[in-house]
Amino acid sequence: MAGSVFGTLVRLSTFGESHGKAVGGILEGIPAGISIDPEAVQEDLDRRRPGQSAIVTQRKESDTVQFLSGIFEGKTLGTPIGFLIENEDQRSKDYDQLEQAFRPSHADFTYQQKYGIRDHRGGGRSSARETVSRVVAGAIAKQVLEQHGIRVDAFVDQIGHIQWTGAWRTPLKAVSESTLVRVPSLEVAEQMEELIREVRKDGDTIGGRIRCVIEGVPAGLGEPVFDKLHAELGKAMLSINAVKGFEIGSGFDAVSMRGSEHNDLFTIEGKTTTNHSGGIQGGISNGMPIDFRVAFKPVATIMKEQETINESFEAVSLSGKGRHDPCVVPRAVPIVEAMAALVILDYLLIQKATH
Amino acid sequence: MAGSVFGTLVRLSTFGESHGKAVGGILEGIPAGISIDPEAVQEDLDRRRPGQSAIVTQRKESDTVQFLSGIFEGKTLGTPIGFLIENEDQRSKDYDQLEQAFRPSHADFTYQQKYGIRDHRGGGRSSARETVSRVVAGAIAKQVLEQHGIRVDAFVDQIGHIQWTGAWRTPLKAVSESTLVRVPSLEVAEQMEELIREVRKDGDTIGGRIRCVIEGVPAGLGEPVFDKLHAELGKAMLSINAVKGFEIGSGFDAVSMRGSEHNDLFTIEGKTTTNHSGGIQGGISNGMPIDFRVAFKPVATIMKEQETINESFEAVSLSGKGRHDPCVVPRAVPIVEAMAALVILDYLLIQKATH
Amino acid sequence: MAGSVFGTLVRLSTFGESHGKAVGGILEGIPAGISIDPEAVQEDLDRRRPGQSAIVTQRKESDTVQFLSGIFEGKTLGTPIGFLIENEDQRSKDYDQLEQAFRPSHADFTYQQKYGIRDHRGGGRSSARETVSRVVAGAIAKQVLEQHGIRVDAFVDQIGHIQWTGAWRTPLKAVSESTLVRVPSLEVAEQMEELIREVRKDGDTIGGRIRCVIEGVPAGLGEPVFDKLHAELGKAMLSINAVKGFEIGSGFDAVSMRGSEHNDLFTIEGKTTTNHSGGIQGGISNGMPIDFRVAFKPVATIMKEQETINESFEAVSLSGKGRHDPCVVPRAVPIVEAMAALVILDYLLIQKATH
Amino acid sequence: MAGSVFGTLVRLSTFGESHGKAVGGILEGIPAGISIDPEAVQEDLDRRRPGQSAIVTQRKESDTVQFLSGIFEGKTLGTPIGFLIENEDQRSKDYDQLEQAFRPSHADFTYQQKYGIRDHRGGGRSSARETVSRVVAGAIAKQVLEQHGIRVDAFVDQIGHIQWTGAWRTPLKAVSESTLVRVPSLEVAEQMEELIREVRKDGDTIGGRIRCVIEGVPAGLGEPVFDKLHAELGKAMLSINAVKGFEIGSGFDAVSMRGSEHNDLFTIEGKTTTNHSGGIQGGISNGMPIDFRVAFKPVATIMKEQETINESFEAVSLSGKGRHDPCVVPRAVPIVEAMAALVILDYLLIQKATH
Repeated sequence: MAGSVFGTLVRLSTFGESHGKAVGGILEGIPAGISIDPEAVQEDLDRRRPGQSAIVTQRKESDTVQFLSGIFEGKTLGTPIGFLIENEDQRSKDYDQLEQAFRPSHADFTYQQKYGIRDHRGGGRSSARETVSRVVAGAIAKQVLEQHGIRVDAFVDQIGHIQWTGAWRTPLKAVSESTLVRVPSLEVAEQMEELIREVRKDGDTIGGRIRCVIEGVPAGLGEPVFDKLHAELGKAMLSINAVKGFEIGSGFDAVSMRGSEHNDLFTIEGKTTTNHSGGIQGGISNGMPIDFRVAFKPVATIMKEQETINESFEAVSLSGKGRHDPCVVPRAVPIVEAMAALVILDYLLIQKATH
Repeated sequence: MAGSVFGTLVRLSTFGESHGKAVGGILEGIPAGISIDPEAVQEDLDRRRPGQSAIVTQRKESDTVQFLSGIFEGKTLGTPIGFLIENEDQRSKDYDQLEQAFRPSHADFTYQQKYGIRDHRGGGRSSARETVSRVVAGAIAKQVLEQHGIRVDAFVDQIGHIQWTGAWRTPLKAVSESTLVRVPSLEVAEQMEELIREVRKDGDTIGGRIRCVIEGVPAGLGEPVFDKLHAELGKAMLSINAVKGFEIGSGFDAVSMRGSEHNDLFTIEGKTTTNHSGGIQGGISNGMPIDFRVAFKPVATIMKEQETINESFEAVSLSGKGRHDPCVVPRAVPIVEAMAALVILDYLLIQKATH
Repeated sequence: MAGSVFGTLVRLSTFGESHGKAVGGILEGIPAGISIDPEAVQEDLDRRRPGQSAIVTQRKESDTVQFLSGIFEGKTLGTPIGFLIENEDQRSKDYDQLEQAFRPSHADFTYQQKYGIRDHRGGGRSSARETVSRVVAGAIAKQVLEQHGIRVDAFVDQIGHIQWTGAWRTPLKAVSESTLVRVPSLEVAEQMEELIREVRKDGDTIGGRIRCVIEGVPAGLGEPVFDKLHAELGKAMLSINAVKGFEIGSGFDAVSMRGSEHNDLFTIEGKTTTNHSGGIQGGISNGMPIDFRVAFKPVATIMKEQETINESFEAVSLSGKGRHDPCVVPRAVPIVEAMAALVILDYLLIQKATH
Repeated sequence: MAGSVFGTLVRLSTFGESHGKAVGGILEGIPAGISIDPEAVQEDLDRRRPGQSAIVTQRKESDTVQFLSGIFEGKTLGTPIGFLIENEDQRSKDYDQLEQAFRPSHADFTYQQKYGIRDHRGGGRSSARETVSRVVAGAIAKQVLEQHGIRVDAFVDQIGHIQWTGAWRTPLKAVSESTLVRVPSLEVAEQMEELIREVRKDGDTIGGRIRCVIEGVPAGLGEPVFDKLHAELGKAMLSINAVKGFEIGSGFDAVSMRGSEHNDLFTIEGKTTTNHSGGIQGGISNGMPIDFRVAFKPVATIMKEQETINESFEAVSLSGKGRHDPCVVPRAVPIVEAMAALVILDYLLIQKATH
């Protein structure tokens, strides 16, 4: 295990540094004979793409995916799908000062400690650029899931202190995707955009939260005891850059609840009247929507000057150059969906194996 | 992957239903030649044991571990350590009514959906009794970690709305372990015990939160990009029964923070002045204490009557029998430590492999 | 990976030293709801058992398996099946001289080099006693395979220079199992027994070969490119003690064959007229019988005096004590079947997952 | 597990169909800071390349590897090494007749049965073209092993009935590599070339055997009990196209040997006077050269007309078109070395982890 492979039957391997020639991956285990729509893949890449709107980084990457194998005449062969995305807009000299200095709350220091060497340009392997490969793989997984009647919908429900507290319904996806922030309310979107612009003006950054709802998952997915469905979803989410927390259903609110209010009572259809469980009981899906939230910290690169140290552990000061996001959360929505889709598809196949 | 194996180089496999003959496991990958103190293992089992105090379930289990292999003349052989704990106090007839009925927010329904068959007595494999095996393995892992100067300390920091908000220091472990609730303050302990007694009197249950601090972890542990150290810790925690959330460092608070306040600035010793990162940056330990929190929902079995359904999807009513915990969180402290220790030891060995 | 876990969806973990308290294992991934016949498991254990006949070791072990979990009212629960077999007839003092000396062609030396410590009694973990756990797991896997119309039949086809060269047909299993040597010819059996007795009289040991034929395997099992079906079968066989070679279909004979004679031509039923492929083409089963052979070296423990060295690398002489097999091959037949059954069942489930 | 990932700490994922855009892979787990010589990689590719001599296929592929990540300023970063090789000389129309017909002893039939779809051009994923990726990864692994004093040398020791029976010594590598057949004797090489030319003239093909000797492996590598070092080597070899058998040390000859002649006696240096064990005892390396042999069947594509069936199970006749090898064995030598190097490096790191 060296960390760049994810999944059991559906398995994604990725490679790529931010300022290397390309990033890409190999997705294996996708069943054979499935029609893949490359445009839908590209759409998800565009949702993640830098430069997509005024509130994200202006780094320009066309992020065009090239498929190299595993798809023949528009259909999956059942063999590994190799793909790559070339790196284009690399202003590597923006990063010259980083050859020595460790950016606070970045992975510069830990990569140096771990490997004794690092590609300092744009964060190298630690850059969120690596998530491009996840989005490609996840977009394919979503297409397979759709054929099983499973929908994976993520959206922003908090930026800073501004929260969207509405009730999620599928049609709201059109709303969330119509806003720059990807929140399912035009009004809240406006407040959030305002906050992000303000933060950017300050040369600062802000955190946020993404909620993900997966509908149509049949009961029975999840492997007791260590590979509980929400444990794997949690790992998948926590592996995304900048994520600091994961909660499912009632989540941290459960801490102060009583059993009598927390228990989800059954209906005679085998559904539950509430969904504090978030669609999973005992690590196994129960047929209700899977519902979880992911906490993102504010981007570490700020435009303000900061004190830090260099490789010789000497104090140096550093001010952010390059083009960065004041808030990465809107762009992370398709990444959350991608990782969720990979987990659900993997567990769906595992469950099929024993039935 | 069928779910009952955890880890890569240090690997735990477990078996056992709540009311079967025994629970147990196989722990492999523990380096050879290490002296194992069986009493320290038993102590951790006693911290998890039912019947240990007035505020937990009065089910009586001596929970005595028998080692069957892998230890020779007091030292590890490097071969798998097989162990088992016999199940003793099984009042299986307490569970007769469950042969048909699905308990709300338990795994009865999902196991039945997944497997089409289940051992209804005491929850079978879905029972938290399975965590006995984790505690045995974790207690061994902790002994190995100690020899590397690594300490794993978990404690309760919230029950219901009552929170302990102090600053953690190692000596507080003696305090937390001296209280029935395992909270590092005698005063807060009293309030929490009071709450638990009140909840029990109501035939109800209450949730809680455990914080875990790991000191002495060298910088460099963690495998980018999917096997980030906190992603694996998160999975390990979310695999524990009743856990609904995991957060590291700033956690969900990061959502409303700005980069300028969230960034951990370096000292010239290579430490950081704050620890919002929770000891991990970019998925790799940075040498600061690893610091995370785990949310537990209230136990689903309550002594109040509840409406539910049976296997024929007919409405039935159910009232809790048997002996259950009003609050499982104090007993979960050694389980959190165990899973954390297994992850850290596994990653420590993986890191050693490439250096 | 520390070596004591085998398989992907059907996964066996084992533990146990030869002279420890017990050997045993955890078998997970067996589908739920399957009736298990414990007597059939015991029968396979008896086929492997020491003391079963005059031509094998006279060590007495009843080898009675105890199931601890995963089976409820005679049926599998889908949860891990924990089991153990107690070690009984341990004349550990037979091994006192081995505390220091390394037996030639045994694993004493390599275990000492690897771990710096070893349980010298009876070979410890390196003893073939460990294969008891494989036989238990394999006997369960065979029962599951039977329900899919798949039969796994192994038999001896060579001892020393004496070879059985007949054509295999299923009914011959009754013949091979009726002989002490497990060869499908009474006449050849007599010659082989005679040879084994002669070898024993000399205080020596002799090698042999086992052939395994698996009928009823549907076309389509096997995962290109690294997890080809015969690659996994090969690994499974090579992991058995004393195995020095594996060949499938034409095997090493293929080296001197021409394509025009080696190619298996198709019939219009989709079968082939010859089976040089051994039932597998391109790593995937083709619906013909899977047919492979496994080479066993002569047992290393001989009753003759041998020169060797001790832990201080000083020359010492050693003569075999204890009770050993002049030829281990007849007892290895159920082990070969067990490992083959585990591989086939695992790959059957993996294939089901994607179809 | 879908079959295209190999290894534990050193892990190779590959992708690519014979007539797709490219083949390639991701190699992760290579330690950081190691200088990689891209020319040595290219040299191994050239040893595997079609068109390299008069006795192999005349298909023209330059097989130039492009590294996309993981190497920075000539040194490994510790991050995944992504690479690809474009497919160039694709005369796909040579394969038009295969769109329907199943070639005897090819994987056309089994891929169709498994996936219900296949890329018929040049065998698609089942083509030995996929081994290009193995050679790239193996060439990198060999460079790392060299720094640990470990040499991996493979050579041909049999083609048809012509065998080289000399004693292997390292300097012979120069001889074997100077011949077209890669056999360590100019005289035997001449006979083998003669045979291959004769076979080609007949429109036929011929099998062969490769021997591999690994020197400098320290004692202690290998993971009991399922992941024995030779079991993993066996799997690695059996995963190579056209391989029908694997044997280590005495191999199948052990079947007719007695223990008294087979046992490797120790010298007081801790070496052994003979090496029937092939450098591995009890699944763990003993410090002697690791020595194994691999059997290759004759290439299935012959230039003679053959009867076969099509997808509708109708009889059709087929004659080989395209450019194929009369004997693939000389080109397989670097593939055997590559897989051996990947296994040894993986196990070396695993062993380092626990010491």
